Amino acid sequence: MSKMRLIVAGAGGRMGRALVRAIADSDGAVLAGALEAPTSDLIGKDAGVLAGLPANGIKLSADLWAMSADADGILDFTVPAATIANVAIAAERGLVHVVGTTGLSSSDDAVIKSVTKRAIVVQSGNMSLGVNLLAALVRQVAKSLDTGFDIEILEMHHKHKVDAPSGTALMLGRAAADGRGISLEDHSARGRDGITGARRSGDIGFASLRGGTAAGDHSVIFAGPSERLVLSHQAEDRMIFAHGALKAALWAHGKPPGYYTMDDVLGLKDLF
Amino acid sequence: MSKMRLIVAGAGGRMGRALVRAIADSDGAVLAGALEAPTSDLIGKDAGVLAGLPANGIKLSADLWAMSADADGILDFTVPAATIANVAIAAERGLVHVVGTTGLSSSDDAVIKSVTKRAIVVQSGNMSLGVNLLAALVRQVAKSLDTGFDIEILEMHHKHKVDAPSGTALMLGRAAADGRGISLEDHSARGRDGITGARRSGDIGFASLRGGTAAGDHSVIFAGPSERLVLSHQAEDRMIFAHGALKAALWAHGKPPGYYTMDDVLGLKDLF
Amino acid sequence: MSKMRLIVAGAGGRMGRALVRAIADSDGAVLAGALEAPTSDLIGKDAGVLAGLPANGIKLSADLWAMSADADGILDFTVPAATIANVAIAAERGLVHVVGTTGLSSSDDAVIKSVTKRAIVVQSGNMSLGVNLLAALVRQVAKSLDTGFDIEILEMHHKHKVDAPSGTALMLGRAAADGRGISLEDHSARGRDGITGARRSGDIGFASLRGGTAAGDHSVIFAGPSERLVLSHQAEDRMIFAHGALKAALWAHGKPPGYYTMDDVLGLKDLF
Amino acid sequence: MSKMRLIVAGAGGRMGRALVRAIADSDGAVLAGALEAPTSDLIGKDAGVLAGLPANGIKLSADLWAMSADADGILDFTVPAATIANVAIAAERGLVHVVGTTGLSSSDDAVIKSVTKRAIVVQSGNMSLGVNLLAALVRQVAKSLDTGFDIEILEMHHKHKVDAPSGTALMLGRAAADGRGISLEDHSARGRDGITGARRSGDIGFASLRGGTAAGDHSVIFAGPSERLVLSHQAEDRMIFAHGALKAALWAHGKPPGYYTMDDVLGLKDLF
Repeated sequence: MSKMRLIVAGAGGRMGRALVRAIADSDGAVLAGALEAPTSDLIGKDAGVLAGLPANGIKLSADLWAMSADADGILDFTVPAATIANVAIAAERGLVHVVGTTGLSSSDDAVIKSVTKRAIVVQSGNMSLGVNLLAALVRQVAKSLDTGFDIEILEMHHKHKVDAPSGTALMLGRAAADGRGISLEDHSARGRDGITGARRSGDIGFASLRGGTAAGDHSVIFAGPSERLVLSHQAEDRMIFAHGALKAALWAHGKPPGYYTMDDVLGLKDLF
Repeated sequence: MSKMRLIVAGAGGRMGRALVRAIADSDGAVLAGALEAPTSDLIGKDAGVLAGLPANGIKLSADLWAMSADADGILDFTVPAATIANVAIAAERGLVHVVGTTGLSSSDDAVIKSVTKRAIVVQSGNMSLGVNLLAALVRQVAKSLDTGFDIEILEMHHKHKVDAPSGTALMLGRAAADGRGISLEDHSARGRDGITGARRSGDIGFASLRGGTAAGDHSVIFAGPSERLVLSHQAEDRMIFAHGALKAALWAHGKPPGYYTMDDVLGLKDLF
Repeated sequence: MSKMRLIVAGAGGRMGRALVRAIADSDGAVLAGALEAPTSDLIGKDAGVLAGLPANGIKLSADLWAMSADADGILDFTVPAATIANVAIAAERGLVHVVGTTGLSSSDDAVIKSVTKRAIVVQSGNMSLGVNLLAALVRQVAKSLDTGFDIEILEMHHKHKVDAPSGTALMLGRAAADGRGISLEDHSARGRDGITGARRSGDIGFASLRGGTAAGDHSVIFAGPSERLVLSHQAEDRMIFAHGALKAALWAHGKPPGYYTMDDVLGLKDLF
Repeated sequence: MSKMRLIVAGAGGRMGRALVRAIADSDGAVLAGALEAPTSDLIGKDAGVLAGLPANGIKLSADLWAMSADADGILDFTVPAATIANVAIAAERGLVHVVGTTGLSSSDDAVIKSVTKRAIVVQSGNMSLGVNLLAALVRQVAKSLDTGFDIEILEMHHKHKVDAPSGTALMLGRAAADGRGISLEDHSARGRDGITGARRSGDIGFASLRGGTAAGDHSVIFAGPSERLVLSHQAEDRMIFAHGALKAALWAHGKPPGYYTMDDVLGLKDLF
């Protein structure tokens, strides 16, 4: 079978360069195009060189229509306006459209879903294989254990991160709440400090560490009488998001049009 | 509903005393008898005092038939010969028989299963809620992730432990191998030392730490490209085995005769 | 050399029973007396049986003067009023007085120090060998690394704990601040939640987890550019405080009168 | 003060590119030259572009004599033959020579030390700040704690690593043995597997995990009665070796000629 031909959107950015490297490492895919905003001064540069690789002859361009004539898919971690602009062309060309862009509004999401009769869209707020699997596990464990086990979620990120808890920590908290059949909003313990009183039974606790360059560690702790079960994920670098996106694209290649998530890609719906 | 009336076998031993304490802490059970070997010089002592609790009036006795007249179940972490002796009486009395005894031969196991038309037996090599859940999770994750994720199993136990890896580590290794559909025997990497060469793809690695008084920590690491998923369990003390056994007894109370395991008690067969 | 003869104050309480067990396990000490409040209904009970051990013939008594006639030291984890009452007798008898009582006022502390011309007092808010050593290490590392390394302190305790961060976490924070020559009060980041902004350089961060029965875990993380140094301590149970107190008593036996801390006992002042 | 002008040896290799990036991130240094073997087909390429950065105008060259006319130091993580060739020129030019090359023979080491009357050499087998600090801490703790605390060393590295335990784990083991005043060779427990018997008191145990892309984690565990002290280091990527080398160069800038190690750079000799 021939290799899947993939376009990287935002190929001049940090995540775009990581995607170019992930494709270069892959046996199943090849870089077919490198999309960048028309105003970028990287237009015309070699995508390989930008990614710290040997030159590969793919120059950054703003013309998705032209570069997609001979492509199978597009990996899109950009900004909402760019993603929405890409949606229509991706659908028209019948591309696999892997969307990792965050900050999309609900109307943006509606636009994306509107094309899934013709397009093959895979969307997730976190493309890491491990984090999606972790969330599925947390849901199961929370369902299986009673409230004699206290649930705590710990995350550590680099010193530049401006919000706490991380979006992924909250995603894990929602998975735990889903498993227990409760609302996370009504059962969160955040920002413990001072005289807190004893832990409220049934709460899901959050704690955040910040420092250095940590790409993102998450642990979900189920602490019961004299034992603890801890489910953890550690991202070594942002390449995991690139690898996850690439896996999503390869999985979706040849699938019927529709809307998919990482749970589909990983087969988590069947397993759990 | 009235409390479940439980006999503790081996009530003078370390595990037996832990069981007496677990029952004393429980809302759903009450101590109905304390069995000990007829040759023990603890016969006649108060089971509560032995367990570091106030006296409870239950004296250690070797007469299971007498003490089981008014009991609902027996928690049995003893030795094979004692357990086999208890099986017949437990079945005759229609008790729930929770068997945590290790080192049973296959003929011992056959005896235990022979009574399960009348008796309600729950048996497991590790009664900890957390470890049984961990094994089920490991099986699922191993099934879900391809061999691009390397599986490593790490355990730490106290300095007196004489074998490595621990039995529970091997149980977790078998769960991982089951999930992958491979034989653990053919895919184990144990005792790494010296020039080992690069890791063989598909192997399940084991490493053992020994020291201090650690009651038992186990971690299963799934190490992939730039990310790691780690599933861990930590036993704080042997009370977790007591709590697990008690939960098993309460779960089994009123169930039809048959042979059950901790997967049944925890509902793991339905969940996964 | 004959064994050190030790009195346990508060011998009927949780910590007192742990001390009785620690002495029973020790090669260097023997139980010489078991002190309890005159109003306790445990007066007259056997201290060994209360501690879950065989009877040892030492009955709980409220008469420190009588029991100290033939004793070398007293281990005192009680309440301020009891400790202050014990101070004078301990000094008169020339006992080693190991004080682990918390919540002492500054005037209580003054009373304790007033006797150290005749008495041998060892006092610490945390008698664990490991925690005291950890604090000394944290001070050194904080001194050695510049503020390119962010310091974070994480602790986990059981669900009943009512304050956050733990007193020991704050002690570790002070050790880090000392090492850096800054004030902890002006450089703490506690209770992170919501839009916090990027981490302030030079801050010492705290995060608290609560759940289950954890006896107390503390980690101090030094997170720098692409590397982390983590110094951790885990208490498996309260016996570590008993072992630390016993070690303090044995160390102090025969020392000149004076006021000592765990840094003296562990030789940390010489080492660091 | 003007920026330190640094040459990177092996600028076309993985470590060399990391060094170029570290210098570009630094406030105190600037890239003055990029040395590569004369046979390399990267000669003439831009060092910045190779490192995944914007072009910086420094072309790879094999002529150290020319490029060092206006330089202050050289960062050298190459191979023994190249390092030995660089030694003489570095000394002649009075450069700071930071040597991270491994596999040097004792005669190579003698050559390096022979020039330290004129040259300023900093050499270490591991340039990471954290690992060198960890080794110093381990030595102190091993000295401070008696053999009631069992020492275990755990490391995890990527799946391609061919030896176990890692060189750094052995370095940590030697630090522990030094602290205790024993020989590591006579007190090692490696490759535990099968019926090992109880842990031998005083041994230093090693365990190795392999998998994925882990850049290198090391933990030294001091496991005592009911408590554990764990000192850990985690390398997120090879940049830590580059940052350590850069720090060594900046520290050595202006120092008198001599032979230095990372203990000097980090001030560990004074602190501990």
